[in-house]
Amino acid sequence: MQPNELIAPGQVWLVGAGPGDPDLLTRKAEKLIVAAQIVFHDALVGPGVLDLIPEGVERVSVGKRSGRHSKAQENINDLLLTAARAGKRVVRLKGGDPSVFGRSAEEMAHLAEEGIGVSICPGITTASAAAASGNASLTLRGVARGLTLVTAHLKAGEPLTLDWETLARPGGTLGIYMGRAAAGEIGRSLIAAGRDPETPVMVAVNVSLPNERLIRGRLSALAFLVETVSDDDPTLLLIGEAMSGINEWRPQLPIAGHKAGSLLC
Amino acid sequence: MQPNELIAPGQVWLVGAGPGDPDLLTRKAEKLIVAAQIVFHDALVGPGVLDLIPEGVERVSVGKRSGRHSKAQENINDLLLTAARAGKRVVRLKGGDPSVFGRSAEEMAHLAEEGIGVSICPGITTASAAAASGNASLTLRGVARGLTLVTAHLKAGEPLTLDWETLARPGGTLGIYMGRAAAGEIGRSLIAAGRDPETPVMVAVNVSLPNERLIRGRLSALAFLVETVSDDDPTLLLIGEAMSGINEWRPQLPIAGHKAGSLLC
Repeated sequence: MQPNELIAPGQVWLVGAGPGDPDLLTRKAEKLIVAAQIVFHDALVGPGVLDLIPEGVERVSVGKRSGRHSKAQENINDLLLTAARAGKRVVRLKGGDPSVFGRSAEEMAHLAEEGIGVSICPGITTASAAAASGNASLTLRGVARGLTLVTAHLKAGEPLTLDWETLARPGGTLGIYMGRAAAGEIGRSLIAAGRDPETPVMVAVNVSLPNERLIRGRLSALAFLVETVSDDDPTLLLIGEAMSGINEWRPQLPIAGHKAGSLLC
Repeated sequence: MQPNELIAPGQVWLVGAGPGDPDLLTRKAEKLIVAAQIVFHDALVGPGVLDLIPEGVERVSVGKRSGRHSKAQENINDLLLTAARAGKRVVRLKGGDPSVFGRSAEEMAHLAEEGIGVSICPGITTASAAAASGNASLTLRGVARGLTLVTAHLKAGEPLTLDWETLARPGGTLGIYMGRAAAGEIGRSLIAAGRDPETPVMVAVNVSLPNERLIRGRLSALAFLVETVSDDDPTLLLIGEAMSGINEWRPQLPIAGHKAGSLLC
């Protein structure tokens, strides 16, 4: 199949760009980018990913970032529709995975209503990439039996109404996307709902990018841990026993600074 | 950087192979496979992914499949250690994402204890790929505010002890990996714990492979929905309102069979 046959004229692909590192793009996403005639992308799509868009392919930033919606969702829907109706091969690049807090359903519904063919290419979600960067696992047999992902991203003025009682249950890893601004409230609410203040956390900032930072600590100190993180930097909070690092969950291992210490960030 | 400089002699990379389609491998994973001198892989790694291993690179199947552990975890740990100690550039390919039910922590701990350098390359987890195949989103604003992933994979003879009360809470999507064998018990337990029997489910089998199947229905019929699925086929259960398909969560859309019908499987 020729590259551009991957996308029919007038078809839209919602493509996961992963967390930012262009090498964390899937082979399929790369092929779709090369096959596109026009690429719409978020502010969260990494610059290295955008560099893969060939010369001559039209690119449109519809960059949403927390608190700075440069284009409302309705406008994005309309831009995609107009490009598809013009018979273009359309790629809509989204940071991370389109199916995880990507609002892909809204774009798909809008396009499908108008008879436009839509398909999805999955991407690496930030939680997976953060765990990899931190040499951690999101699940641990007998310790962290599940993984729950939620977002703290809110519409302006909306209160943070997460199900704290459920999220505070031990025995799993909790990932909170866009968690920078509400970190203090998240820490207090989880502890008030019964989660151990000593629960290990990893604050993962700009995951997979050259300015990535992984900050480890305890739930009780969450507000403090994010203090040096800019509001503009995409931030994932990972909370749970699995985040203690292998030196802690297997105490028979040598302590940090000795031969296994290179695994700690 | 030359390809083989990605892996130092004696270093081990745990690499996510994604759900099976070689195009859902990341660019980084592909580069690591090409840089390896020896590749250890699971039974769940897709044949198309294995085809990317260059001629002359040693490949070792350490294939675990539910109920048929061809090599115990301890043996896998030892094989990785031996190869690394021999100074080889080692890739350990795992189906999906190493950090999501991949037992990567156990392999990392074992190797780190012995002073071996270990790194992780993330992979597309099956839930992301299943949602993409089904043109669904795992989260929906105001409907499915979170995503919880658990596994129903058990050691032989172990009872299934999931936190049904928590998992039965509405308002999120629940993904159950290796859910084929326990599907009936899962459906009954969730309903007994209060989840609506009408909750939409998608049974995703052999996700992203040529023999992929997506079976949609209701929670009350879960045991029935998996009846035609072989025990050998990796099966993910996705449960929650987000699985109803865009025609149901936005009732103003045309019904299936009309112009948006192509989005339904």
